[in-house]
Amino acid sequence: MQQHQRKQWRIPPVDTQMEEKARKHVDQLTKPTGALGDLEELVVRLAGITGQVFSDISKKGVAIFCADHGVTVEGVSAYPAEVTGLMIGNFSRGKAAVNVLAQRFQSEVAVVDVGSRLPKPPEGVLERKVRSGTANMAQGPAMTRQEAEEALQAGADLASSWKGAGLQLTAVGEMGIGNTTSASAVAACLTGKPVRRLIGRGTGLDEEGVRRKGEVITRSLQVNRPDPRDPLDVLTKVGGLELAAMAGFMLEASHLRLPVVLDGLITTAAALAAVRMEPRVRSYLFASHQSAEPGHALLLEALDMRPLISAGMRLGEGSGAVLAFPLFDAAVATAREMATFAELGME
Amino acid sequence: MQQHQRKQWRIPPVDTQMEEKARKHVDQLTKPTGALGDLEELVVRLAGITGQVFSDISKKGVAIFCADHGVTVEGVSAYPAEVTGLMIGNFSRGKAAVNVLAQRFQSEVAVVDVGSRLPKPPEGVLERKVRSGTANMAQGPAMTRQEAEEALQAGADLASSWKGAGLQLTAVGEMGIGNTTSASAVAACLTGKPVRRLIGRGTGLDEEGVRRKGEVITRSLQVNRPDPRDPLDVLTKVGGLELAAMAGFMLEASHLRLPVVLDGLITTAAALAAVRMEPRVRSYLFASHQSAEPGHALLLEALDMRPLISAGMRLGEGSGAVLAFPLFDAAVATAREMATFAELGME
Repeated sequence: MQQHQRKQWRIPPVDTQMEEKARKHVDQLTKPTGALGDLEELVVRLAGITGQVFSDISKKGVAIFCADHGVTVEGVSAYPAEVTGLMIGNFSRGKAAVNVLAQRFQSEVAVVDVGSRLPKPPEGVLERKVRSGTANMAQGPAMTRQEAEEALQAGADLASSWKGAGLQLTAVGEMGIGNTTSASAVAACLTGKPVRRLIGRGTGLDEEGVRRKGEVITRSLQVNRPDPRDPLDVLTKVGGLELAAMAGFMLEASHLRLPVVLDGLITTAAALAAVRMEPRVRSYLFASHQSAEPGHALLLEALDMRPLISAGMRLGEGSGAVLAFPLFDAAVATAREMATFAELGME
Repeated sequence: MQQHQRKQWRIPPVDTQMEEKARKHVDQLTKPTGALGDLEELVVRLAGITGQVFSDISKKGVAIFCADHGVTVEGVSAYPAEVTGLMIGNFSRGKAAVNVLAQRFQSEVAVVDVGSRLPKPPEGVLERKVRSGTANMAQGPAMTRQEAEEALQAGADLASSWKGAGLQLTAVGEMGIGNTTSASAVAACLTGKPVRRLIGRGTGLDEEGVRRKGEVITRSLQVNRPDPRDPLDVLTKVGGLELAAMAGFMLEASHLRLPVVLDGLITTAAALAAVRMEPRVRSYLFASHQSAEPGHALLLEALDMRPLISAGMRLGEGSGAVLAFPLFDAAVATAREMATFAELGME
């Protein structure tokens, strides 16, 4: 693997002239101005990214980054850590929620093991293991900075390979028992919001479990003192290998003008880290759904993003992101196929 | 046409045992309990309607009921009344937003003229005209009770014909310049909420337009004094022909165990009328999106419904309902295709 430490990612600006052209076209369609709401915004933003009024987003993929978390020994999850490995097997057999949705909505699926404790990932899983799970962040840094860079690169490499393969719309997802704890720690550090406002039940904690999770996050932040002005430091000390990999995926995808649809709390924490590293990344990211996890709304607010779907999901895996794919297709189809007022014989 | 005055609609209860079976199955799938949020509710509710754990909803249709409104002479819409007829033409040529979405999501489209001012509707439009537009409700009843019954029957007949044709999931939509005004009047009367909390910009009114619209609604309610305990009286006096037709569609669909997906403000006002006529109708109705029209949220609340999509749309036509079809498909697909924890080797 390339060990080059990339300090900067060149992210191109979006094409604002093409955005303007797309908006003009959308405003001529047979509907009141703005009546298709956020679907119109999708059309305009995609035009700015693809450089086409009618963006082609037919080739899609969802990337699921998987890793284990040392912090699970603190009892922060309703599920045992072994479930990460079991779910990687489930993804590889195409039987998890995200697989079913991806199949339904014609999306490729890539499963990347960036740090599970599985000795060997099952057939079909991309092996990019940086280490076998993070260390317990409640006692020290989750990983070294070098490891965070490697995880970043693993994500970047998939974005680059997908761009090469002609993919046009991507989504990120994750699997890692314990990772709502890491994501909430990253969110607390980067947003400056109090931990208690950010945390929820994750996979199904009871009230006492949520309280303990809050304490563990607070302790992790005290022990490690991550620097909010250095997002990679935050990912290193209180993040996770899959969080770093997703941030790397987003940075490289943005560099290559490849749009990325976010999922819930964990992907959006990674997104905030990526945007803090390179603010232009924001232009290539799209919200999908509003997760039931309370921290998610605060992260979307920090990124000034509005979700499309409000179905109270809290599964992860990229499931909410893939569920939004047909809404993206719908947006592009209306722009391409609806009549204009002129065609209807109206001014 | 049958002139029989049907005073009661026999609506069967849903199959709660099948709901329980479906819930048990969903709870065994490889995800935390409840993590697929409202998608799980869709699976359970559909099972109660279809009597199958794995509901087949592949055959879908959206019914667009169209009519003109006499109240447009009061200047309550940003568009001239002629646009109703032009849009009926647009639907018939397959070039409106709802057509594009229906094509994308494999749904049939029926366009029913229950009361436009078109002398003859274009090819492909179902002609069930009760009268050429309503009277101006600011001066007297929009229609007679007999006419409201006929419009109800026109809607019921389509539901019945679709059930016969094997359709499994339906949506309702509408077109009628001026109909956010009628729908808001119906909503104000049935919910008892103040008019100012219910009204919005419709197709694009300015502030002065919204104020005038509020005055017209208040005046219409004063002039006609519709009885909120008699929903058909409300539809007759301050409703619209398409509103009555949609209510009839929902009543008959429920009678035939055919699920109906609602769209925005106007369809939901019709839904509240139908549910007030026969409370069991509620079990066969599904919310799709949260419209940008302020009255819509209050109507959904009155029906105790939560929308799936939050894209800020306000187009009507059934566009938001059809946009939710892939979410219904996704829900059913997860139930059918995901692995259970037992298959994964977990308790």
